[in-house]
Amino acid sequence: MINVGIIGFGTVGAGTVRLLFENRDILTERTGFEINLKRIADLDILRDRGINISQDILTTNADDILDDPHIDIVVELIGGISPAKDFILKAIQNRKHVVTANKALLATAGNEIFTAAFNVGVEIGFEASVAGGIPIIRVIREGLVANRIKAVYGIINGTSNYILTKMTDEHVEFSEALKEAQSLGYAEADPTLDVEGVDSAHKLAILASLSYGIPISFDSIYKEGISKISPQDIEFASEFGYKVKLLAIAKETDSIIELRVHPTMLPKEYLISKVDGPFNAIYVEGDATGSTLYYGRGAGDMPTGSAVVSDIVDIARNIRKKSTGRIPIMPRTLRDLRIKKMDDVISRYYFRFSAVDRPGVLSKISGILGDYNISIASVIQKGRRIGEAVPLVVLTHEAKERDVRQALREIDPLPVVMDKTVFMRVEGKEN
Amino acid sequence: MINVGIIGFGTVGAGTVRLLFENRDILTERTGFEINLKRIADLDILRDRGINISQDILTTNADDILDDPHIDIVVELIGGISPAKDFILKAIQNRKHVVTANKALLATAGNEIFTAAFNVGVEIGFEASVAGGIPIIRVIREGLVANRIKAVYGIINGTSNYILTKMTDEHVEFSEALKEAQSLGYAEADPTLDVEGVDSAHKLAILASLSYGIPISFDSIYKEGISKISPQDIEFASEFGYKVKLLAIAKETDSIIELRVHPTMLPKEYLISKVDGPFNAIYVEGDATGSTLYYGRGAGDMPTGSAVVSDIVDIARNIRKKSTGRIPIMPRTLRDLRIKKMDDVISRYYFRFSAVDRPGVLSKISGILGDYNISIASVIQKGRRIGEAVPLVVLTHEAKERDVRQALREIDPLPVVMDKTVFMRVEGKEN
Repeated sequence: MINVGIIGFGTVGAGTVRLLFENRDILTERTGFEINLKRIADLDILRDRGINISQDILTTNADDILDDPHIDIVVELIGGISPAKDFILKAIQNRKHVVTANKALLATAGNEIFTAAFNVGVEIGFEASVAGGIPIIRVIREGLVANRIKAVYGIINGTSNYILTKMTDEHVEFSEALKEAQSLGYAEADPTLDVEGVDSAHKLAILASLSYGIPISFDSIYKEGISKISPQDIEFASEFGYKVKLLAIAKETDSIIELRVHPTMLPKEYLISKVDGPFNAIYVEGDATGSTLYYGRGAGDMPTGSAVVSDIVDIARNIRKKSTGRIPIMPRTLRDLRIKKMDDVISRYYFRFSAVDRPGVLSKISGILGDYNISIASVIQKGRRIGEAVPLVVLTHEAKERDVRQALREIDPLPVVMDKTVFMRVEGKEN
Repeated sequence: MINVGIIGFGTVGAGTVRLLFENRDILTERTGFEINLKRIADLDILRDRGINISQDILTTNADDILDDPHIDIVVELIGGISPAKDFILKAIQNRKHVVTANKALLATAGNEIFTAAFNVGVEIGFEASVAGGIPIIRVIREGLVANRIKAVYGIINGTSNYILTKMTDEHVEFSEALKEAQSLGYAEADPTLDVEGVDSAHKLAILASLSYGIPISFDSIYKEGISKISPQDIEFASEFGYKVKLLAIAKETDSIIELRVHPTMLPKEYLISKVDGPFNAIYVEGDATGSTLYYGRGAGDMPTGSAVVSDIVDIARNIRKKSTGRIPIMPRTLRDLRIKKMDDVISRYYFRFSAVDRPGVLSKISGILGDYNISIASVIQKGRRIGEAVPLVVLTHEAKERDVRQALREIDPLPVVMDKTVFMRVEGKEN
């Protein structure tokens, strides 16, 4: 029998507990042993979670789990940095295996936590930290173990994807779509982490570390959110044949890795462009497999609980077989990999200039773009209002981010340009 | 160091060998040990596979691998039943772990092979037997271990999907699309296994066994192929909002499992409906995760090689940690599950009647359908040629397969019905 203690009896905690109880029969069938939920710690042990558990296993004191010599696996589901980090480090110190869904913590203190676990010889399971019910950690670490990963990119924040889907389908502004997401419980009262790309970057840091064998490098990730996207840009993108998605991207070329999160235009016919609402999807390109895609619910009590329990089972199997450390938590590459500066990233771009509708304006703007080696693939000018500002929409061929920024610094102050230029990066095959 | 012997140096064998050589560095980084390809057996050891290997490791005698006491893992990649089965059983007898891509063998003799392996205490890896580069075996067995699987269905035969895609996009007949698939190497000279649903059923037998803990039940699977599909039916399906796909379906309701492979109409907006060409996609619905989807290349040297190597790594890790048997090869459910007879399957249906264009014909046909509790959801009659046969296309609400067959036995002999009625099953939400 393997004893488990759960710290944090919120949404994911309740999902995990329900699964351990309601699917106990199949878990036993599939593993050949019992997983016993010995203790649950939460500050609130009075609220009814609708699960029939004995009151005796509830405690408000996490130490009742961390210091219990009979508990083999500690599951941390309180989220946030403090006290989650202290709990995890104490669990490790007490030679307990750890399962966590805490991407914010792993993205910022993962290297320290993994090192501590490695030194003591315990496991850290974190399938639940990325993409909820999609077993993407296992897929990359085990299923695709034979592959050099060329690219991993995905929609890994359901909140932003819900908002972008709503903006796309109903032509509403960001603020309105956000309100709806909040009322449905898809977005928090303070939505910053979700809509500004921070949560996606947390998860990308974990995926990139696994895929490339590099330390967790959250600070090196370029982050740009969706709050400045307008329904107008989504419509122009659509006219060019693209969907707008908040994409977290990791790509390797010649030992240099790009790590970035930003709104991205993707060809409509791509499978990932069709992933709507709160769903997640991750595209992984291996050198052997080529394109693969993994799709499912990225959040919620039961999907995330499924990931937590899969880690509990995995670690329990290692405890039973005394095979802890069977898979290195975070293998380190011996290759000399560097992370590319955002300035050096090469992409195609979408620009929306607010340009005065007057002869010579396009020539002026495209002249400056040309000075910075940015060549134009297509142009749409919308409407005709001589002498007034109209949207001048441009799609470019590949250009360097630094050149784009410098060109815009020259273009935006032009007297014929009435507003800050909006730009987005474009991925995928050129249409 | 773990020693591996490969029997079968064809397409997948060559992909596997290339990966073991070309990605040796990352394999070592990720595992912490060396995987040594000690021997390759094939009847043809002269042909140049474009891989730089020492001639010394090649042999035409499989026993050089099966009887080599230093070889830990035997990889069977010759396909077919004989002598593959004998090789695998001999390997097991000699206490060697086995990796195989042989779905035909597992579908027909899997229970015997798994039992033999269990009795001796060796592992059988078979990730490569289903869906090539998509790690679906690991996903179901480990990633979704906490879930009761409600349904698994997918496009798991790339050849038929290529043919159906071509028929859909170019409005060509099956025979023409097949010829093209053959010329591109997507279909064999004898395409029966692929286009008649047998290969899909092989794979479905494996997926269902894993998902439900039942023995491999290939013979219980209803199989129907795509050779009778016409571009006309694909177009009618499209008018109703559906795509036609060869789907392998396993579903559980109240301890009764449906296992069937047949052309299926799926709502166009479903992600799986957008999986075209030789690609595979598998939809898995867990009770905790809800909908999840896995997409990638289902065949080919490198994608399938990726799956083979992932199994080699997995088994090698168990050898190193002495944790063989860590995951039961095929856990058996304790529940009393039964497989539904095809006659008892309930589905929605598409019918194309070749009916004489004359008043009262629809009433006659729908009358018989009504007698068998089959109610009509929509009807299209194409063209008007009074007194001649025109297609009368009907979509039904849910009906029982047995009733459908009996109704057609009454309808087809009617004097106003000029040809055998075509029918297809319809899955997904009612439009």
